Amino acid sequence: MLKIPDHQVAGHTARHGKLGPLIDDSGRFYKPLQDDERGSKEVAFYTSFSSNKRIPDHIRRFFPMFYGTQLLEASDGSGLRPHLVLQDLVSDRHNPSIIDIKIGSRTWYPQASEDYVEKCLQKDKITTSLLLGFRISGLQIYGNNESGFWKPEKKLVLAFTPEDVRLVLRKFVSSNSPTDSNSVPDCSFAPSVYGGSAGILAQLLDLKAWFEDQTIYQFNSCSVLMLYEKESAMKGRSSGAEVKLIDFAHVVEGRGVIDHNFLGGLCSFIKFVSEILTSPDEHSTEACSPDPEKKCIAIENGTTE
Amino acid sequence: MLKIPDHQVAGHTARHGKLGPLIDDSGRFYKPLQDDERGSKEVAFYTSFSSNKRIPDHIRRFFPMFYGTQLLEASDGSGLRPHLVLQDLVSDRHNPSIIDIKIGSRTWYPQASEDYVEKCLQKDKITTSLLLGFRISGLQIYGNNESGFWKPEKKLVLAFTPEDVRLVLRKFVSSNSPTDSNSVPDCSFAPSVYGGSAGILAQLLDLKAWFEDQTIYQFNSCSVLMLYEKESAMKGRSSGAEVKLIDFAHVVEGRGVIDHNFLGGLCSFIKFVSEILTSPDEHSTEACSPDPEKKCIAIENGTTE
Repeated sequence: MLKIPDHQVAGHTARHGKLGPLIDDSGRFYKPLQDDERGSKEVAFYTSFSSNKRIPDHIRRFFPMFYGTQLLEASDGSGLRPHLVLQDLVSDRHNPSIIDIKIGSRTWYPQASEDYVEKCLQKDKITTSLLLGFRISGLQIYGNNESGFWKPEKKLVLAFTPEDVRLVLRKFVSSNSPTDSNSVPDCSFAPSVYGGSAGILAQLLDLKAWFEDQTIYQFNSCSVLMLYEKESAMKGRSSGAEVKLIDFAHVVEGRGVIDHNFLGGLCSFIKFVSEILTSPDEHSTEACSPDPEKKCIAIENGTTE
Repeated sequence: MLKIPDHQVAGHTARHGKLGPLIDDSGRFYKPLQDDERGSKEVAFYTSFSSNKRIPDHIRRFFPMFYGTQLLEASDGSGLRPHLVLQDLVSDRHNPSIIDIKIGSRTWYPQASEDYVEKCLQKDKITTSLLLGFRISGLQIYGNNESGFWKPEKKLVLAFTPEDVRLVLRKFVSSNSPTDSNSVPDCSFAPSVYGGSAGILAQLLDLKAWFEDQTIYQFNSCSVLMLYEKESAMKGRSSGAEVKLIDFAHVVEGRGVIDHNFLGGLCSFIKFVSEILTSPDEHSTEACSPDPEKKCIAIENGTTE
């Protein structure tokens, strides 16, 4: 009855007998609790959030539904283990294209140990987190019936440069093949996926307005998940473009301060998305402009000195 | 003809025969160039900024006027030294109350050396930068004719907790004495200084809108300066409330990415200011509420572990 999710793009996976999340046919997602404090912290967040009356409904929709915890046979065969029971965000989706974007130029939190800070800081430096305020953690982009999904492996995704990120965000909303490096992404679905009154950008701006005000939580190391269905968009139907927030193992109390780290990264990501909407036919290589005030954004290992 | 500025609240000072900025009677401020790259980087920024046609006028007003560089006898008697020639922001001010707020939870920049990063990171942790996204670097608050200014020394300012910051931002716009710890700041000038269509908050929001869009510069370790004249406000005249940006020795090219670090910190600061406008009569101690969802924001050494 429980099975391994088809459309997970980041995080631990239950494949190859490892410990990872499972799904069922009723639209639920079972995330195993880690043995360390991460698991209990994520349960604490969902419990607090689901009962918090200060969360407006138009913000609550960005979060997976929470159904409590449940003891289940773990996917690695290690026996019974508590699992978070969440909404499976893609249970009613057909071939969804998905990008997982970890938000924040800093993925560690002030209260963390020196070792943890150092580990995260190094990762923030070698990925785009520090420079862009976010990094792509995983993705799958649907091509067509024959090619299926482009789902680059984790190592490749974490090595993305700022220019790669720009390109991937264009590929995400293009009709041409995501793996064809010779064709320029046409961004033909940008207006219907990123744009419009219910599109990704509008949803991100809703989220931004909340983050400018809310001082309840600090969402360290959380991800924004963007998803939509290309086949549906190709047929002129609704693309089902949706933004969700996931991964709350490092959420801490806001203590009266807004989450400036998340907000800054979110604004940077919003700028990337809105630039695709305003210049959908710009070749990504044009970012390397001879205009001295508009320098090439490709940064060669500039983060790792 | 050149003299030591009366109203400098942060940074190097020319007092006691040290190297620091000087002013003249014509409203110019002479900032000595440091021997290391900071001086030349700040000149480079002002030169680039002053000729950049993509800076709108309503943003340019936040920056000091730049008049080039000039060789001058240095204030420490070490001989001729190049100085930045800038507008003296307080030359036409009478007893200005001033706060210098260094913006950003991170005051270092990705390209910096490991040593420099470590030094800044430690300072960001022990001050409020990491937690609040900004820290107060210096201030002077005018009391009255007899008491003059409250100008706490640097050591005290850098030891401010989040709760101290909240209190100082209230004292800044209060009619009662800034040094009287028994009286609760009345925030009587909040509507005229922070509020209104030309007040501090309106100016900060203007600046924020630009930072959401501009990808020309990253303003690492810059300060927002807030100033106004209490005596003028007391007489019901314009408070002359003004926001300025200063200190550009660590500005780097934006390379197509918004300054998410500055923007996040600016939004956090905006939230602090707007909370004073919406609850001007709230005692600062009320932030320690028994409501479990609204915990005390005083954080005891939580930043230095």
